[in-house]
Amino acid sequence: MRLRNKPWADDYMNENSHIVIADPFSKKGKWATEFENDHPIHIEIGTGKGQFITGMSKKNPNTNFIGIERVKSVIVGAVKKVKEAEVANTRLLNEDADDLRELFEESEVEQIYLNFSDPWPKARHEKRRLTFKTFLEQYQSILKPDGTIVMKTDNRQLFEYSLVSFSQAGWTLEEVSLNLHDLEDPTNVMTEYEGKFSEQGHPIYRCVVRVP
Amino acid sequence: MRLRNKPWADDYMNENSHIVIADPFSKKGKWATEFENDHPIHIEIGTGKGQFITGMSKKNPNTNFIGIERVKSVIVGAVKKVKEAEVANTRLLNEDADDLRELFEESEVEQIYLNFSDPWPKARHEKRRLTFKTFLEQYQSILKPDGTIVMKTDNRQLFEYSLVSFSQAGWTLEEVSLNLHDLEDPTNVMTEYEGKFSEQGHPIYRCVVRVP
Ligand SMILES: C[S@@+](CC[C@H](N)C(=O)[O-])C[C@H]1O[C@@H](n2cnc3c(N)ncnc32)[C@H](O)[C@@H]1O
Ligand SMILES: C[S@@+](CC[C@H](N)C(=O)[O-])C[C@H]1O[C@@H](n2cnc3c(N)ncnc32)[C@H](O)[C@@H]1O
Repeated sequence: MRLRNKPWADDYMNENSHIVIADPFSKKGKWATEFENDHPIHIEIGTGKGQFITGMSKKNPNTNFIGIERVKSVIVGAVKKVKEAEVANTRLLNEDADDLRELFEESEVEQIYLNFSDPWPKARHEKRRLTFKTFLEQYQSILKPDGTIVMKTDNRQLFEYSLVSFSQAGWTLEEVSLNLHDLEDPTNVMTEYEGKFSEQGHPIYRCVVRVP
Repeated sequence: MRLRNKPWADDYMNENSHIVIADPFSKKGKWATEFENDHPIHIEIGTGKGQFITGMSKKNPNTNFIGIERVKSVIVGAVKKVKEAEVANTRLLNEDADDLRELFEESEVEQIYLNFSDPWPKARHEKRRLTFKTFLEQYQSILKPDGTIVMKTDNRQLFEYSLVSFSQAGWTLEEVSLNLHDLEDPTNVMTEYEGKFSEQGHPIYRCVVRVP
């Protein structure tokens, strides 16, 4: 499904260029201009079909949200949700987050969300994990001095790996939950994967880490 | 059971003064003399009935182990196990670990084990948790520059709390497992509590953190 060709996807994204930014690299350092305000910027890497970012945008009108998703046939789902929500504080980028420093200026971002990132369980794929040290360096560079990453996942190995990776790179753990859905949290916005895995009874892991 | 008076306990400990050290404060800075070698010193806080320390002592003859347990009626069980194991590298202290700096010189210890420490779940008892910041300061002072703490517990809230507490105090996470018994680990030595809780299907959490 994710890999199926969707020829209408390009047309749909062009029609909604106020949501999906066609040339996001030109916005580097100028996101405040794009949003026409200087509210804090939160970005999500691997936005999927957009349930989280849409929910967050509605709940937090004074925060600007940017969702990055590399798969075209997936991001169109997010475009649809953002459009229907009629929120002005959200943009989507159909890009690979391989170097965020090309998209954001130093200290341009306040918070980064990593939701149910691909686990890449094989050791030889370690470099692809979004919490590998080279990614952490990028995040550090675009985050404000007090900036944070909020990570959620059901994947125990990825979470264990990430806690160690953050710590070794000098990030400070602010919060950790090893079973997010154990307590009712009205501020939590679920992602698609979160809904699916928590229904299946998997514990959901979450942490908040502060930049070195 | 743990609180029952055991009048024979004092006698038993006196008979076994080669294992239970009567005046451990006099050994501060001189543990190498007590053990008659300069092998690394590992300590366990809250040794309970001694299954872990006895198992570790047998497996690691070139490490010296010191177990600290404040409840007399509990530590006698550990004395019995150590005695039967006929190991020369183990000592037990019937003390409250309220200030380890009175028992150990700076950098005298290589590793500290916290096994299934009392969780003290109430916020007003936070100071009693063995990973509260004042305890971490003590550990930091007695550990060698490269020293580590190995913590195991089945208590999710205590583990979450401890990960954050370690991180905020500048300790580095070296390893973390959120389900220790998921994989066979032939080097793992189980404690009494670990046996009980893992049989009941609780996940066992474990971390290794390095001193700041
Ligand atoms: C497992 S899905 C999770 C989707 C959503 N966050 C959720 O929780 O339901 C991971 C998503 O991240 C996207 N992704 C992975 N690596 C990416 C990268 N480097 N840049 C942009 N998107 C990425 C994938 O295409 C996929 O849609
Ligand atoms: C929950 S039991 C766990 C026993 C054993 N470590 C195990 O895993 O089976 C905790 C033990 O730590 C001891 N303890 C707690 N705080 C202590 C302290 N400050 N000093 C010495 N012993 C302590 C208690 O008396 C108790 O025997």
